[in-house]
Amino acid sequence: MVGTQSLPSWNDGLVKSAILDFVSRIAKQGTGDFVPPAERICTFDMDGTLWCEQPLQVQVFFLFDRVKELSAKDPELVKRLPFKAMLEHDYDTLFRLGKQAVFELVFATHAGMTDEDFERVARGWLATAKHPKLGRLFKECVYRPQVELLAYLRENGFKTYIVSGSGIEFVRAFAEEVFGVPREQVIGSSGKMRYELKDDRVSLMKLPELNSFDDREAKPLNISLHIGRRPPLAFGNSDGDLPMLRYAKSGRGARLALLLHHDDAEREVAYDREFRLSPLAEGLDKAGEYGITVVSMKRDWKSVF
Amino acid sequence: MVGTQSLPSWNDGLVKSAILDFVSRIAKQGTGDFVPPAERICTFDMDGTLWCEQPLQVQVFFLFDRVKELSAKDPELVKRLPFKAMLEHDYDTLFRLGKQAVFELVFATHAGMTDEDFERVARGWLATAKHPKLGRLFKECVYRPQVELLAYLRENGFKTYIVSGSGIEFVRAFAEEVFGVPREQVIGSSGKMRYELKDDRVSLMKLPELNSFDDREAKPLNISLHIGRRPPLAFGNSDGDLPMLRYAKSGRGARLALLLHHDDAEREVAYDREFRLSPLAEGLDKAGEYGITVVSMKRDWKSVF
Repeated sequence: MVGTQSLPSWNDGLVKSAILDFVSRIAKQGTGDFVPPAERICTFDMDGTLWCEQPLQVQVFFLFDRVKELSAKDPELVKRLPFKAMLEHDYDTLFRLGKQAVFELVFATHAGMTDEDFERVARGWLATAKHPKLGRLFKECVYRPQVELLAYLRENGFKTYIVSGSGIEFVRAFAEEVFGVPREQVIGSSGKMRYELKDDRVSLMKLPELNSFDDREAKPLNISLHIGRRPPLAFGNSDGDLPMLRYAKSGRGARLALLLHHDDAEREVAYDREFRLSPLAEGLDKAGEYGITVVSMKRDWKSVF
Repeated sequence: MVGTQSLPSWNDGLVKSAILDFVSRIAKQGTGDFVPPAERICTFDMDGTLWCEQPLQVQVFFLFDRVKELSAKDPELVKRLPFKAMLEHDYDTLFRLGKQAVFELVFATHAGMTDEDFERVARGWLATAKHPKLGRLFKECVYRPQVELLAYLRENGFKTYIVSGSGIEFVRAFAEEVFGVPREQVIGSSGKMRYELKDDRVSLMKLPELNSFDDREAKPLNISLHIGRRPPLAFGNSDGDLPMLRYAKSGRGARLALLLHHDDAEREVAYDREFRLSPLAEGLDKAGEYGITVVSMKRDWKSVF
């Protein structure tokens, strides 16, 4: 499957060569780098890796719209924190309030319903919600080179997984349609749930309690829990992905760890160290030492969308 | 794929017909019962459903051999509970000591090593460990009708999952070889793990702390977490499987929930209510009310092994 036609939205160069070379090596039987198809697992971060995360991750916009809906029903909500700050886009205050405040917002808007009801809410929102700057549907803010890469990896026998800090049920609501990744290949942050039996019907109620925040060290731990294999290839874009990349990189045989650097102010946004929701600093400083390949959006992508 | 050649180790009758009929209905496009291939998920309990769980579940024998190994290194262990009870096969005492004692045994023998080291230990054990009564390898104590059923479901587009109370890493050590179920399609009980970075190498250390005991209500909850789809077909053999069966059964469209009744003293073992490690009582009493199809090993299986 390796050929010059592969990955048309990637510019020729060291990075594209590294990807094509890696895939051809793991597919070649009888060599030390051969990886049997069952072990061909790759894990991709989502926000900022597969689609835009600027000015904020997609789920934050969802959260905002859900808080607005909630406050329409309960006007008292508008007056108190953290809801007030969210509605006023006062992210400084939200940051000062910290994780607990964010969880309060998430639980108020994502819990108290079944997983299946939440799915309907999320799908309904995604069907019409637009990116505030790009002016098109969020689900159209996908990076074309990455969609090609996912398809290329699947053609070469890889199971493509998303491993995201966003909520697992939120991501599952569109992963199949938008990224071609089936629901069971989505790993994400999760809340606890309760088994409920009513009128002979079982449903699973989402509770306002964290199960796993799928960021940093939690990513490899959740990969082990969900997949049970160390992925030979991983792709991220922030320091929160480094544990996953280093986990992938430090297995035996051929390994490829990729880190997208948003350095393309013209075609997307240039950011790294200063993006406090998901900074990239250690990754830039230590990529060489960690054996991680940095992908420059500006240099390595022929087109972005 | 439906035909009289299917499932040769199953006797003709109501149960076999129910299975063939269910599969033919969900595969028929344009009908209300059609299930698109992506949604064709089935979840099987393992112990007592796919292979023997008598006189004890396979992992209990593993646990025993691991405790023996441990006590060879640390002779003090032999003198204190719960290790003493385990080594003396004193299951009455173990039961009286309760869950905490069992966890102490499990953690002492399953934790304190990486997931990859544990895998080697478990595979090594499975390669030679024999069933005490059948006199053959544990991995040869598989029920032939179930292996046929798993293959038949896969031929018809199903992803076959194991959802077991046994440890997820223990089951993954052989699920692919023994049942044709890849590691990422195994759900089971799990402990917590810790991300460790040593000499630039990442490993995941198994900790002596429970993450999830995958029994009863936890089964549908873990199915939702790992798969994110309500399975149209589920198969179990004890009351611990009822929440999973009722979860499968109460979705929309065609549904099939199956419960194996071990009523064949001649070819295997006859047991249900009295097997305290995993009793079947509510399932027998309420199968009709819950819409669950009881499979009689004696009546419905032409051969067992």
